[in-house]
Amino acid sequence: MQIDLNCDLGEGFGRWSLGDDAALVDVVSSANVACGFHAGDPGTMRQVAEWCVDAGVAIGAQVGYRDLAGFGRRFIDVEPSHLADEVLYQIGALDAFARRAGARVTYVKPHGALYNAIVHHQRQAEAVVEGVRAFDATMPVLGLPGSLWLELAEKAGLRPVAEAFADRAYTREGTLVPRSEPGAVLHDAEQIAERCVRLATSHEVVSVDGTVVPMTPDSICVHGDTAGAAVIARAVRDALEAAGLRVAAFSGAG
Amino acid sequence: MQIDLNCDLGEGFGRWSLGDDAALVDVVSSANVACGFHAGDPGTMRQVAEWCVDAGVAIGAQVGYRDLAGFGRRFIDVEPSHLADEVLYQIGALDAFARRAGARVTYVKPHGALYNAIVHHQRQAEAVVEGVRAFDATMPVLGLPGSLWLELAEKAGLRPVAEAFADRAYTREGTLVPRSEPGAVLHDAEQIAERCVRLATSHEVVSVDGTVVPMTPDSICVHGDTAGAAVIARAVRDALEAAGLRVAAFSGAG
Amino acid sequence: MQIDLNCDLGEGFGRWSLGDDAALVDVVSSANVACGFHAGDPGTMRQVAEWCVDAGVAIGAQVGYRDLAGFGRRFIDVEPSHLADEVLYQIGALDAFARRAGARVTYVKPHGALYNAIVHHQRQAEAVVEGVRAFDATMPVLGLPGSLWLELAEKAGLRPVAEAFADRAYTREGTLVPRSEPGAVLHDAEQIAERCVRLATSHEVVSVDGTVVPMTPDSICVHGDTAGAAVIARAVRDALEAAGLRVAAFSGAG
Amino acid sequence: MQIDLNCDLGEGFGRWSLGDDAALVDVVSSANVACGFHAGDPGTMRQVAEWCVDAGVAIGAQVGYRDLAGFGRRFIDVEPSHLADEVLYQIGALDAFARRAGARVTYVKPHGALYNAIVHHQRQAEAVVEGVRAFDATMPVLGLPGSLWLELAEKAGLRPVAEAFADRAYTREGTLVPRSEPGAVLHDAEQIAERCVRLATSHEVVSVDGTVVPMTPDSICVHGDTAGAAVIARAVRDALEAAGLRVAAFSGAG
Repeated sequence: MQIDLNCDLGEGFGRWSLGDDAALVDVVSSANVACGFHAGDPGTMRQVAEWCVDAGVAIGAQVGYRDLAGFGRRFIDVEPSHLADEVLYQIGALDAFARRAGARVTYVKPHGALYNAIVHHQRQAEAVVEGVRAFDATMPVLGLPGSLWLELAEKAGLRPVAEAFADRAYTREGTLVPRSEPGAVLHDAEQIAERCVRLATSHEVVSVDGTVVPMTPDSICVHGDTAGAAVIARAVRDALEAAGLRVAAFSGAG
Repeated sequence: MQIDLNCDLGEGFGRWSLGDDAALVDVVSSANVACGFHAGDPGTMRQVAEWCVDAGVAIGAQVGYRDLAGFGRRFIDVEPSHLADEVLYQIGALDAFARRAGARVTYVKPHGALYNAIVHHQRQAEAVVEGVRAFDATMPVLGLPGSLWLELAEKAGLRPVAEAFADRAYTREGTLVPRSEPGAVLHDAEQIAERCVRLATSHEVVSVDGTVVPMTPDSICVHGDTAGAAVIARAVRDALEAAGLRVAAFSGAG
Repeated sequence: MQIDLNCDLGEGFGRWSLGDDAALVDVVSSANVACGFHAGDPGTMRQVAEWCVDAGVAIGAQVGYRDLAGFGRRFIDVEPSHLADEVLYQIGALDAFARRAGARVTYVKPHGALYNAIVHHQRQAEAVVEGVRAFDATMPVLGLPGSLWLELAEKAGLRPVAEAFADRAYTREGTLVPRSEPGAVLHDAEQIAERCVRLATSHEVVSVDGTVVPMTPDSICVHGDTAGAAVIARAVRDALEAAGLRVAAFSGAG
Repeated sequence: MQIDLNCDLGEGFGRWSLGDDAALVDVVSSANVACGFHAGDPGTMRQVAEWCVDAGVAIGAQVGYRDLAGFGRRFIDVEPSHLADEVLYQIGALDAFARRAGARVTYVKPHGALYNAIVHHQRQAEAVVEGVRAFDATMPVLGLPGSLWLELAEKAGLRPVAEAFADRAYTREGTLVPRSEPGAVLHDAEQIAERCVRLATSHEVVSVDGTVVPMTPDSICVHGDTAGAAVIARAVRDALEAAGLRVAAFSGAG
C-alpha cells in the first residue's frame, strides 16, 4: 500500500521566506511549488526543484492568481481566457527549472482563492483545465474531491487526483469545516498523524460530530507555512511508514 | 542568398499596447517576444506565438530585467545567480506558448539595458549565458557584434548571432553612434531600406563620416515601437526581396 | 449655470501611454488622476498635476484595485480593511504631487471594477468610504447616482457627487445600458454633445426606448482612453459653452 | 544628554512578515517605515504608524528603489527625475498613514542600495534631495556621515542627520568595514550596547584595528530584520538609559 503526501513549497518571495522548505522536502512525496504569480521567485524555484530531485520528490505547479500582495488568497474575477494563459505561463516557467534539475512538472495544484473558486466557478474551472491541457493534455491535477474542477478536468482528459487535508476537520457529509468555525483546524501532531493513517489504511475519517465518513484520497495535504508545520508533517510521515505504508508520489515521478 | 529580419514584438502589457504586432509579424522572419518581466503578458504571448506560427516566423525570447515600470531600460545590479534564474524563467514561460502554438523558442535576445550591460559586464553576461544554457545548451543567441556577451556565449557552446540595426548610424569603427548624438537614429524609410540591402548583399555600411565599413550581420534588427515602424520595416523587407534576397529566420525555424 | 466635466487622466504606466492627457486637460474641469495601483506612475502623476494646476483643473484621486495587469477592471475580493488602507495610500501619494504643484486632491473617484463593485457591495463600499474619510472627513466623492457607495458616503459625512456619462445610453429607469448590449456606447460627437447640453440645462436624458428621463448630474464624465476621445470631449465642452454654461469643477477647486 | 535610536520597521509585504515590529517599536525613538516600493504595504503602514504614535516614536519614510523582488538591495540606474518623483510618492503615501494616526512623517531615510548609491552617486543624490524637498523643504534626512547625500541635502536646505551603526565595525578612518570582510558585523548584544553608550557619551568608537575614532552621531541605527534583533536593540536601549541618557527622536517628534 502506498499514499502520497503533498505540501506547498517555495512560497517565499525575494527577501521574504515562508515555511521550512529544506525540512519539508525530506518529508513529502509531492511538492506544490509556487510559480511566481502569488508567491515564489526564480531563485527559489531553482533551489526547490533541485531539492525535489535530490529527495526523489515529484514537482507540481502550484498555480494561482497574479496577486503577490494578496498571496493569491483573494478571488479575482479574471477573464477566463487570461486565466488559462496565466496558468500555462506559470507551468511553463516552473517546468524550465524542473528540466534544469533533471525532472519535469508532473502535476498541477491550484492555490488559495483559485483552488476554492474552481470548486464551483465553472468558467474559471474550465479556464484552468484549458491552461493545463495546453501544457499536457493528460496531466494529473490535484483538487478537492467532488469539486467541479476535478469533474471538468476528468472530462477533458486530465487525471483527477483527490486530496484530503491532514489538519482539517470534516463534516459528516465529508466536506471541510469552514475555517471560521471552532475546531476547523487541528493542531495536535499525534492526532493528525493518526487520522492520516486511518485515511490511508481504512479509507475513513471521523467527522466533527463523531461520524465515521468514508474517504479515499489519492493524496494527503500537509501544511508548510505555519509554526511547527515541519514537525507535524514529519509525524504524519513517520506514522504512515510505521503503519507499513509507502509514501510515494501519486504521479509516479520523483 | 538570405537574410534574417528580427523585431521586438509583444511588448504591450495588459491594457497597454505598443507597436503594431499584427502588421510586423507579416514583415519579419524572427520575432523577439517579450516574456513578462519588462513587458509582455500571458495573453499577448499566446496571441503573438500563434501569429508567428501562422506567418512562419521564428519565436525568440526577448528576456530582460524584472522592471515593468522601467520597460527594462534601466541597468539593475542583479546578483548574477538570480539573473540566470530570471532568464531561464522567462524562456520557459514563453516556450509554453510556443509549444502550444506548435513551435518552440528557437533563440534568445536580451532586451534594453540588459542588452547593453552584457556588451561589457562580465558577471551579468556569464549569468545570461548560464540561464540560456540551462534551457538549451546550443541555443542561438542574438547580440551586438564584438560584445562580450556573444564571445562568452560562443565559448559556452551557444550559437552567437550578430545583428546590425536597420535604423542606427554607425561610426567608422563599426560601433553604434550613441543615441545622444545627432543623426544617431535614421528615419527615412527609403534610406534605411537601401542600407539594409547593402548590408545583406555587399556586407558593408556607410558610417556617419562617409567611411565604408565592412559588416556581415546574421540578422538585421528593425524597430517596432515607434511611429511608422511597420511602414519602415515593410520598406526594408520589400527592398531586400526586390534585391533578390530571401528573408528567412537565421535559426531555420518558422 | 455651470456644469463639471470629469475625465480619467494619467492612465499610462512607464513606457506605455494611454489617452491624450495634454489635450484633455484643456477640456475638462475635473481630472481623475490614476494613482499607481491600476495605472499611473510617479512621473506621470507629477506631470498631470502640473498640467491641472496650469489649466485650472481640479485634481481628483482615481483610486482602484491593486492590479496593473488588469487595469483595475477585474473585481478583487480584497479584505475590506486592506481596501480602506489601499485607498488611503493612493490618495496620499497623489496629494504629494498635487501639493507640489500648488494644489490639493479635492475629490475621489473609484475606478473600473471598484467603481462597479461598490454600487452594491456593502463591505467594499464601506471600506472605500473609510479610506477616503481617513484622508479628509468631508471629501467630495464621485459615483453613480443611486449607488450604495454614494449613499454610504453621504451618511458618513462625505459629499456625494452624482455623475452622468456623456457617451453611454440609459434605460428608461435611468440606469446604464450594459456594455454588452448594442447601442450601449455612443460614438457620434455631435449627438453626445447635444445630450450633454440637455443634461446640463434641462436635467433630462432620452433613454434607448425614447423616454425622457429626468437626471440632474453634478458632473458629466467624458472618456479619454478611446480613439477620438479628445475630439468628443472638446465637442462637448464647446457645445456646453455655446449654450451659455460655465464649465467648472464641482469641487470649487482648480 | 539624549540620543536617538532608529530602526527599519514595516518591512513585510502582504503574507510575508519580517522583523518583530511590535517589539522594536517599544525600543527605538525613530522608526524608518517602508513605503511600499521595496517593502511595506498599506495595511502594515497603517499598523506601524499607529504603534509609533502609541509609543511616542517618530515616523520616518524609508524610501527605496521600486524593487519588491530585490528588497531594494540592487542598484537601479533610474533616471533622476523619475527617482525624485518616486521618493515624493513614497513620502506622500506614508504621510497619509502618519496623519491618520495623528502624526506626520518627520524625516526621510533612504534604504538599501539607494542608501549606498547616494553616498557618491551625484545625480541620484540630487534626485532624492529634490524628491524630499518637494514634500518639505526643511525635512531632516538620515544618512552616512560624510556622504554626498548629506552634503547636498544640507546645501539644499534640508537638515542632515548623521547616523552610526550599532552592530557594524568601523575602520580607523571612520568608514564602515565592508560586509564582505570578517568581523564586519557584530553579534554580541553586550558588546554592541557598550559601543553605543561610548558613542553617545564619549563620541568615539574603537575601530577594527583598535584605534579610537571620534564620531558624533545624531542617531544610532539598530537592525530589526535579523534573528535576535529585538533582543540586541533592547540591550542597547537599556544600556543607554542605564548610562543616564534619554533615548528620544532627533526630530523632536514622537
